Amino acid sequence: MHEHVDTIEKTFFFRVVWDMDGFRIPPSGLEEAFAPLANELGATWKIHFKGRKLRIAVFVSKYEHCLQELLWRQRLADYPVEIPLILSNHSDVKPMADYHRIPFHVFPVNPDNKPEQERKELDLLEINEIDTIVLARYMQVLSAQFIEKYPGQIINIHHSFLPAFMGGNPYKQAYERGVKIIGATSHYVTEDLDEGPIIEQDIVRISHRDTTEDLIRKGRDLERIVLARAVYFHAEHRVLLNGRKTIVFD
Amino acid sequence: MHEHVDTIEKTFFFRVVWDMDGFRIPPSGLEEAFAPLANELGATWKIHFKGRKLRIAVFVSKYEHCLQELLWRQRLADYPVEIPLILSNHSDVKPMADYHRIPFHVFPVNPDNKPEQERKELDLLEINEIDTIVLARYMQVLSAQFIEKYPGQIINIHHSFLPAFMGGNPYKQAYERGVKIIGATSHYVTEDLDEGPIIEQDIVRISHRDTTEDLIRKGRDLERIVLARAVYFHAEHRVLLNGRKTIVFD
Amino acid sequence: MHEHVDTIEKTFFFRVVWDMDGFRIPPSGLEEAFAPLANELGATWKIHFKGRKLRIAVFVSKYEHCLQELLWRQRLADYPVEIPLILSNHSDVKPMADYHRIPFHVFPVNPDNKPEQERKELDLLEINEIDTIVLARYMQVLSAQFIEKYPGQIINIHHSFLPAFMGGNPYKQAYERGVKIIGATSHYVTEDLDEGPIIEQDIVRISHRDTTEDLIRKGRDLERIVLARAVYFHAEHRVLLNGRKTIVFD
Amino acid sequence: MHEHVDTIEKTFFFRVVWDMDGFRIPPSGLEEAFAPLANELGATWKIHFKGRKLRIAVFVSKYEHCLQELLWRQRLADYPVEIPLILSNHSDVKPMADYHRIPFHVFPVNPDNKPEQERKELDLLEINEIDTIVLARYMQVLSAQFIEKYPGQIINIHHSFLPAFMGGNPYKQAYERGVKIIGATSHYVTEDLDEGPIIEQDIVRISHRDTTEDLIRKGRDLERIVLARAVYFHAEHRVLLNGRKTIVFD
Repeated sequence: MHEHVDTIEKTFFFRVVWDMDGFRIPPSGLEEAFAPLANELGATWKIHFKGRKLRIAVFVSKYEHCLQELLWRQRLADYPVEIPLILSNHSDVKPMADYHRIPFHVFPVNPDNKPEQERKELDLLEINEIDTIVLARYMQVLSAQFIEKYPGQIINIHHSFLPAFMGGNPYKQAYERGVKIIGATSHYVTEDLDEGPIIEQDIVRISHRDTTEDLIRKGRDLERIVLARAVYFHAEHRVLLNGRKTIVFD
Repeated sequence: MHEHVDTIEKTFFFRVVWDMDGFRIPPSGLEEAFAPLANELGATWKIHFKGRKLRIAVFVSKYEHCLQELLWRQRLADYPVEIPLILSNHSDVKPMADYHRIPFHVFPVNPDNKPEQERKELDLLEINEIDTIVLARYMQVLSAQFIEKYPGQIINIHHSFLPAFMGGNPYKQAYERGVKIIGATSHYVTEDLDEGPIIEQDIVRISHRDTTEDLIRKGRDLERIVLARAVYFHAEHRVLLNGRKTIVFD
Repeated sequence: MHEHVDTIEKTFFFRVVWDMDGFRIPPSGLEEAFAPLANELGATWKIHFKGRKLRIAVFVSKYEHCLQELLWRQRLADYPVEIPLILSNHSDVKPMADYHRIPFHVFPVNPDNKPEQERKELDLLEINEIDTIVLARYMQVLSAQFIEKYPGQIINIHHSFLPAFMGGNPYKQAYERGVKIIGATSHYVTEDLDEGPIIEQDIVRISHRDTTEDLIRKGRDLERIVLARAVYFHAEHRVLLNGRKTIVFD
Repeated sequence: MHEHVDTIEKTFFFRVVWDMDGFRIPPSGLEEAFAPLANELGATWKIHFKGRKLRIAVFVSKYEHCLQELLWRQRLADYPVEIPLILSNHSDVKPMADYHRIPFHVFPVNPDNKPEQERKELDLLEINEIDTIVLARYMQVLSAQFIEKYPGQIINIHHSFLPAFMGGNPYKQAYERGVKIIGATSHYVTEDLDEGPIIEQDIVRISHRDTTEDLIRKGRDLERIVLARAVYFHAEHRVLLNGRKTIVFD
């Protein structure tokens, strides 16, 4: 059981996990049984079953390290997720998808075909009953129309310690600014680029000896781990949204 | 001996410490002896003697934690610094200066009297043969005229992980953005506020449970340590400037 | 509200903080009101009032950095503690106690006089209504008889990442072993030296460039911060004992 | 250029990397050219060519996460290594070797056949011109005879913050001791188990909420990253041995 009170917003957050062994209400009756209390409290609520894995579609462009991390964790089975499909605007990482025998779909995107391609992508996601989309270094900006179909269900990894170095090429920005630490940030995607609620962040120390290439190399390890942790928290339903912030019951 | 080659800027940085025992050139003859080689290499260079302590003036406003940290380290004598005077725009921290028997000068600053007050401050610094100014949570912006008198010799502590949360009230900004990590940054002061070369940074993990007050409390520990480390590196002449970046031979 | 279930030991831990505004039971009636429920549950429980500061006696030997840290935090008043007396087996840090106007008592200890000195110390603690003893780099081992008078109320700082480098001179041990990280550990004192329940730990990265003296210098910052955090958690009654482990509701 | 002086052991360590463009001595003549100076200094020295990749044999048992990490980094080609063969005492991770098309050899080991199996392994290593052996969670202890064939060339990952929790089952030990931080250590293998020179360590924070299984899960990420960093430093010839310690020019 985890609890949090936001005394400023006057909101109460709660997560409870219990064992159904010897529980008198059957799984199918839980929602009906809980609804009256929830209504009385004016609560927003959801019940998830531990056996049910989250269905994730991974969007990727040319870098494979974040995808690789997610596939490896699925294979390890210590995350309650399955990855029934991978989408990309390029075909570069297809061999990795093939090795894991996961359907791989290429949707090249340009300003003209974007609305149409996104429509096709959405169809594909619906057919595959996808719960959550993970942008594993996906280099396209999703449209507002696309995003609103999956509210609080699109997770991105940004390769900087947000809000520092928003936008493109954060490692180059970091190198030029001469920071002593670089970071990575995993957040929910909203219409405001790089402004969505942050799920997880971490950092690594750098020095004047590190070139931009070193930052990219060191940052890769960070991106993988930070994204993996965020997906873990999300898949375990440990993340609750609180406006533009998150509650993470870790 | 420490060395760094900036292959982009084509600059070579070098720091060497040696023992004068049995050295044929006397201390007073070192500069003359080295000058010809330095000229040949087109080098910018300086020779410091280990016995000579750096003379630091601390500027402070109302928060005493960073001042306290510096005074304690001076007292411990593991830093090669002495603090012959403390300047403030308020009298709040005078008791701490008194306890350490360090002259404390108040210069209240407002837009009208600022040029005059800065002139008086500069006189006082000169009389006291100050090498370096440390802004230990000093809440006034120094003028360009003031700053250019101490190039690469004014150290500030900013209570955020720069370049995130520049400007005022970074803890409030961090709280509102919902970051999972906060930081502190110590940097040299230049005309561009919060944009000077970074000497040292560090971070601490936070969570949704932390209020703005908690961030201030946790950040205080960070500010103290980060500023103290930066002053240590500077006082040991381990920091070399490289444009808007630093080389820190730690 | 914080909760933890130890599924192995079958124990349920719970901490709740509430506002007495508009609460029908008066403070003086709380214990009586709660007792029946607690008895039914077989609970071990305590009620603390936020206004009531924890009374701490600091034991210290010759190093003053940890004592200094605690005194400074008391002065800042962001910790719910007061420090009515300081005990030492030496008189080295008396000036610091004097500055803070805190009674300072010297009890030189040797194998012969130890039982008698400890008796005197215990008397003094009792007269001063001390709740908790903090060993701020106190270099004497307390007897089992002494420890059992303050169960779960004696906090120590050990200058290593326990259980690595137990016993004396951990920085020298760390230097000789060539570790790349050093740590500090704050724990409750039990009869088994360096084996008590751990409250807080932290680390700092080192390298081959660091001498034993550098480890001592870097470690000092760690010891101060780790001890201060442990005292904070303890003073806020955020630490619950679970056998030889702690639950820290941070 | 990196330099270190061990003032206690009176030893001078040095690593220099240079560009052969326009260098008058040809690569094949470097050793002959440098030898006289080295002899004069009584130096232990080696010259490595950047183009030449280190040939690594990975030894593994049943856990694949560390192996996977190394294979992925080889594939990325940002490490100057190649992995021409994988050895194991089990066949569990064969599919991963097959996917990467790396020869996989199984040598089941028991007390009786150990000398013979090790002889066969050594033959295989010799035939494949292996420079370095990486024990990527290999659960067998190598004999002294085996180890002395590859002095300073066998790298192990131990899943604890050495010297804490030496020996078997460190996560269980850590859980039972109630530490607040766990670590991983990569070190050179010597005859003294878990006592070899440490190359790299890192840690992750844990809490009372973490079960032994959580420690294993969190530790896996640490082991992978720590081992990968150690192999990187080693492959770039950034690690020099100094008795039972290492100099890492990072």
